[in-house]
Amino acid sequence: MTEPGFAWRDATVAIVGLGLMGGSLALALREKNACAKILAVDHDPLTRAQAESLGMHTSESLDLVSRADVIVLATPVRAILELLPRVGALAQPGACVLDLGSTKQAITRAMESLPPQLQVIGAHPMCGKETAGFAVADAHLFRGALFALTPLARTARQTLALAQTLAETVGAHSLVLDAARHDQIVATTSHLPYALAAMLMLLAADRAHEDDAVFALAAGGFRDTSRLAASDPTMMLDILLTNRVNVAKAIRDTARHLNQFADMLERGDENELRVILARAAQARQKIFQNGAVTPTNPSADQKLTMDNG
Amino acid sequence: MTEPGFAWRDATVAIVGLGLMGGSLALALREKNACAKILAVDHDPLTRAQAESLGMHTSESLDLVSRADVIVLATPVRAILELLPRVGALAQPGACVLDLGSTKQAITRAMESLPPQLQVIGAHPMCGKETAGFAVADAHLFRGALFALTPLARTARQTLALAQTLAETVGAHSLVLDAARHDQIVATTSHLPYALAAMLMLLAADRAHEDDAVFALAAGGFRDTSRLAASDPTMMLDILLTNRVNVAKAIRDTARHLNQFADMLERGDENELRVILARAAQARQKIFQNGAVTPTNPSADQKLTMDNG
Repeated sequence: MTEPGFAWRDATVAIVGLGLMGGSLALALREKNACAKILAVDHDPLTRAQAESLGMHTSESLDLVSRADVIVLATPVRAILELLPRVGALAQPGACVLDLGSTKQAITRAMESLPPQLQVIGAHPMCGKETAGFAVADAHLFRGALFALTPLARTARQTLALAQTLAETVGAHSLVLDAARHDQIVATTSHLPYALAAMLMLLAADRAHEDDAVFALAAGGFRDTSRLAASDPTMMLDILLTNRVNVAKAIRDTARHLNQFADMLERGDENELRVILARAAQARQKIFQNGAVTPTNPSADQKLTMDNG
Repeated sequence: MTEPGFAWRDATVAIVGLGLMGGSLALALREKNACAKILAVDHDPLTRAQAESLGMHTSESLDLVSRADVIVLATPVRAILELLPRVGALAQPGACVLDLGSTKQAITRAMESLPPQLQVIGAHPMCGKETAGFAVADAHLFRGALFALTPLARTARQTLALAQTLAETVGAHSLVLDAARHDQIVATTSHLPYALAAMLMLLAADRAHEDDAVFALAAGGFRDTSRLAASDPTMMLDILLTNRVNVAKAIRDTARHLNQFADMLERGDENELRVILARAAQARQKIFQNGAVTPTNPSADQKLTMDNG
């Protein structure tokens, strides 16, 4: 098994896909002066021109990755799956291939087939916006975020350390976990919220056809709950289709709970409803303190002021 | 039918319930120097002490409303329903009774029974926070928000104008609509989002019992989609129970759509999924421009950058 024979500061990093994630990573590495050279592959001429003007070497062609020590695949998930064999054929021996895809099982499975002289590891920065593209990329996107890292059996210790250093360099912290476990968790924490937002948006849009005051009465609650519906459909389609079983299960569980909730409402079962609503409010208050996620201390008990309304 | 014989600047306003809504209204009226005197009824001694220190006259007793020209009921909905007959017995002839409850049909129906020498109108400021209480009240809460106004058949034109002036005074604009139509719309735009947030939160909390990394992987998408789950359960219980038929229907419609969505996912029907996701994204982008609601121009076409990710 080949181990990476370079340090970040001497490394040539190739980023494939200068969207929100890849673009933000490029900007963060550049700001920190973290590596010797940044190469970027993107199909969009305007994006390439912008990246060139910031001192990156760019190309439309994937061939560029043959010059890199670290290759970061930052396209939607199914594009990563298509790119992997081609990257495997182009990459120099000892290079490290890392991806930023939002689901990890399909990708790490595809990584297993890469030539053994390449190092591989999956990564998923747990941050984002509902907007996409290099135009909204942000050097500080990863600050305070979590990088989920999903090593394979073949991943060398030094490669894992390299990925952890990358996360730290851009201001994130990292959590190492199995790809299957990652996908199961994000089905609930990311993909289900997206599905709920999309269904809410479609239902409200249907109602708005019947009554033109619908969106006039949409306030902050609707805005926040529907925010994820604006996500890039191509990106989301790839995510959903590569995490299909977990997402379908989470959606069906939610539909069942919703119907049970509607049953309680129709029965007017006040005590049952109060228990459910109080449990949801307490769980939300335990996990988020003043709007900030506190993943390291989820049981912290500083509550929002909720008791004298 | 008695019409109000006073102007705002000479009026004594009694606010019953100094929570987020009532407290913010009191602070906004005070900041604008909009009325002669503010009286406040609240059960909490600390809240009363704070209000007194800001120059309001307060009491634990509802009797205070007998001295007011305008009586604003700002408690949870079912407390408003209980208060209305008592307020009707206490209020002076010609006084205007207005409420800030989140559902309007049950309240306007109860208002019908008040003595004919009182003026009545329903109001619902479409804004809020997931926190409650006078401690988080904010004089600027209503700025840019919409006041839904639901007049009754008996509501005089001058009373409607009085409520419209109130909305303008605190920086809001108003929309006049029928109480039944109001409740039907907010079932989709407010109460359904709350139910989705609460169910998401409960499902994630259940998963977190099985896997302690669940909330570590919860990022901004989960935070926003679950935000409403933190809402005050008492307030929400009142809202749901007084808008039961509409809310149960919206929830069941959503559950059905979610199951259909899970069907598509399991079939791997890519074209069908792409149409749905693109429709949701386009609808969301049409309605919100850069995060701001644009109720007056919902078909505006300024899109977020979404096409080169």
